[in-house]
Amino acid sequence: MKAVRVGLLGFGVVGGGTVAVLTRNAHEIARRAGRGIEIVKILTRDPGKRRAQAVPEGLITTDAAMILDDPTIEVVVETMGGIEPARSYILAAIAKGKHVVTANKALIATAGNEIFAAARARGVVVAFEAAVAGGIPIIKAIREGLAGNRIRGVAGIINGTCNYILTEMREHGTEFATALAQAQELGYAEADPHFDVDGIDAAHKLTILAAIAFGIPLAFAQVHIEGIRDLESADIAYAAELGYRVKHIGIARRVSDGIELRVHPVLIPHKRLIANVDGVMNAILVSGDAVGSTLFYGPGAGAEPTGSAVVADIIDVVRTLTTDPELRVPHLAFQPDALSDGPILGMADVTTACYLRCEAEDRPGVLADITRILADLGISIEAILQKPPEPGAHTVPVILLTHGVREAQIDEAIARIAALSAVTGKIRRLRVESFA
Amino acid sequence: MKAVRVGLLGFGVVGGGTVAVLTRNAHEIARRAGRGIEIVKILTRDPGKRRAQAVPEGLITTDAAMILDDPTIEVVVETMGGIEPARSYILAAIAKGKHVVTANKALIATAGNEIFAAARARGVVVAFEAAVAGGIPIIKAIREGLAGNRIRGVAGIINGTCNYILTEMREHGTEFATALAQAQELGYAEADPHFDVDGIDAAHKLTILAAIAFGIPLAFAQVHIEGIRDLESADIAYAAELGYRVKHIGIARRVSDGIELRVHPVLIPHKRLIANVDGVMNAILVSGDAVGSTLFYGPGAGAEPTGSAVVADIIDVVRTLTTDPELRVPHLAFQPDALSDGPILGMADVTTACYLRCEAEDRPGVLADITRILADLGISIEAILQKPPEPGAHTVPVILLTHGVREAQIDEAIARIAALSAVTGKIRRLRVESFA
Repeated sequence: MKAVRVGLLGFGVVGGGTVAVLTRNAHEIARRAGRGIEIVKILTRDPGKRRAQAVPEGLITTDAAMILDDPTIEVVVETMGGIEPARSYILAAIAKGKHVVTANKALIATAGNEIFAAARARGVVVAFEAAVAGGIPIIKAIREGLAGNRIRGVAGIINGTCNYILTEMREHGTEFATALAQAQELGYAEADPHFDVDGIDAAHKLTILAAIAFGIPLAFAQVHIEGIRDLESADIAYAAELGYRVKHIGIARRVSDGIELRVHPVLIPHKRLIANVDGVMNAILVSGDAVGSTLFYGPGAGAEPTGSAVVADIIDVVRTLTTDPELRVPHLAFQPDALSDGPILGMADVTTACYLRCEAEDRPGVLADITRILADLGISIEAILQKPPEPGAHTVPVILLTHGVREAQIDEAIARIAALSAVTGKIRRLRVESFA
Repeated sequence: MKAVRVGLLGFGVVGGGTVAVLTRNAHEIARRAGRGIEIVKILTRDPGKRRAQAVPEGLITTDAAMILDDPTIEVVVETMGGIEPARSYILAAIAKGKHVVTANKALIATAGNEIFAAARARGVVVAFEAAVAGGIPIIKAIREGLAGNRIRGVAGIINGTCNYILTEMREHGTEFATALAQAQELGYAEADPHFDVDGIDAAHKLTILAAIAFGIPLAFAQVHIEGIRDLESADIAYAAELGYRVKHIGIARRVSDGIELRVHPVLIPHKRLIANVDGVMNAILVSGDAVGSTLFYGPGAGAEPTGSAVVADIIDVVRTLTTDPELRVPHLAFQPDALSDGPILGMADVTTACYLRCEAEDRPGVLADITRILADLGISIEAILQKPPEPGAHTVPVILLTHGVREAQIDEAIARIAALSAVTGKIRRLRVESFA
């Protein structure tokens, strides 16, 4: 069979990785796909740039129309990132009847509903495995591999930058700012780390995972987002003393009155497999009513791991070229007329166990006051850790683990504890998930 | 669209789980598949048996022809297990142009080449996700999700019975026979545990994984197989002291001069994620040249986890009903005319690090004799652990970890050490894998 002709939009890290994988493994891929995959044009802003991946000069263009208007190109791969012009290019490709493969999580999370509607109307595929967790085939696992399940929840370490920073903080007692600087030096964090360390990137990915897990439209605006900037290595150390690891997690969970969508740091019992996923690696727990608990682990970023996902998507697209569009895997896993609008819960209605830390004066009665406040609010305590004062300090850290409590309740408790005269400084609060 | 009509061969644990999942999740599955899945006939030897999963009486039959000869049945699901009559029924279904979904690892591993050839000739699909690692969608991950990679190796905990027994032995110092009896009581091991504890079941699964990872024909007869019967809890404890966990692993690895295919107990550094997979759970490491290291974890057996995989396969089959057969994912991941016959290495040519334990008389010079033998054979030592004698014992256990050594070399070393007059009893040997 003739090779499939592919146009590549963007020649940065992921685009380069895709070209590298396609080139090096051309033979292996043809052995699998039964058909070659040929990149015939690459759009880049910077044609003169020196690249690890050398390509024939004729392949490079700075004019998107050379790809979008070429009727011989059947598949367009978008690895530019960002919203525009990626969105317009993808919509243009769809309008021309081309299939699209994209690694763009921000775009899918925020404009996916529009893009998929356009693709449906035109009968083409938009594949996006590379948008979540890099090389881990998690979209495929949830959309296809676990398609017999009613998914109960998805929880993942889906930002490698955060996970690297938290691993450094735990292993070496490094503070956030130092660990971030290290991550930047190693290329694990960008010069502007906002999307990563403030949880936006994880929220993009969680939005996509939740949609395909539950059959809800993409709902990025409804994700509760917290990053890791405010974490102190002391909390990571206290958590360890209590038998927990701190991870930055995206959680989408079906509960009785709706769906939780939240991204924030979490204490996880150290025995859980996911608690032991360190460095820049990603891992996603998927719980289904039939399968039970599964976990998918691998590199969540990087040129070739992401390229691996892009290439798998291209092969998948090739496989469905002759398939009745009605029978293809729906973009968001569920038939578009079967999407539900299960309510997304506000954080006030979310229930989790909590970790609290405050600094209190080292005198009798303070602990009694704090535990009284919790008792009055019906919050039960799982563990208390009171540390001796640091030399020269007048206050001691008090650490509490509560049983499950509604967020609104714990907010009230924090306000009352903060109002105690013996308590100084900010009260630190982290959520706890057992993932049992 | 009309529901797909499915015939079920076998109504045991997996058949029952499949019916349970299809029944309970009928709505969720139709939301995904765009089409209902209806089981219209179930073959069982024992129609009167009381079952967890009640089905209308008219569905049950003891006559396979009611399914195989029914032209309205498009998909046949085989969950009987064993070679015959499963093989004949599947070949008959294929001959009638029906697609097949099977959970039968023994059959695929030993007769898959024949079955897939028949299916190809007739243009039908034979899907077998449920044959390996129960609910974990590992076949899909390797065949499709990582299709852009040249796979370097696959290594997995793929027998839950063995993993349960080894976990008990480590956590409670239980000996093999007691842990096996426990596993049988809990339903984790069968009355005849031969296939599980002697590694046959794991070898069936490894055979399948290796074929789809490397594009080689199914080669069950060439798998080196060892079980866990000879393991003593003492070795598990010594391994722990050295920083390792003992797991029963199936390994398929591409090395410079061929492919390793082996199933046996392995020492793994305790920090590795796969070393922390306990109880009956399964996990498979897949290493690809583009993606790097990935791990897939979940329940490897049980009614509904396996049913989850069967149902996913049925949905997949439905999706490809109109697909050009040439474009479907090849049964063994690679195009049949592109299978390679990379040589499978004999064990003598496999290189691994080794753990050795012997009992030696507690007198000077013995350790010197042992280490001299290793030095003479060019085997370098990574660690030595000599324990004090047990009260009243005249011998002491000597434990050695070697660096990587060819199997033929270590066999020679073991023979020479065993010939020392100061060494008594059997020399225990386990292989060590770092999975770095």
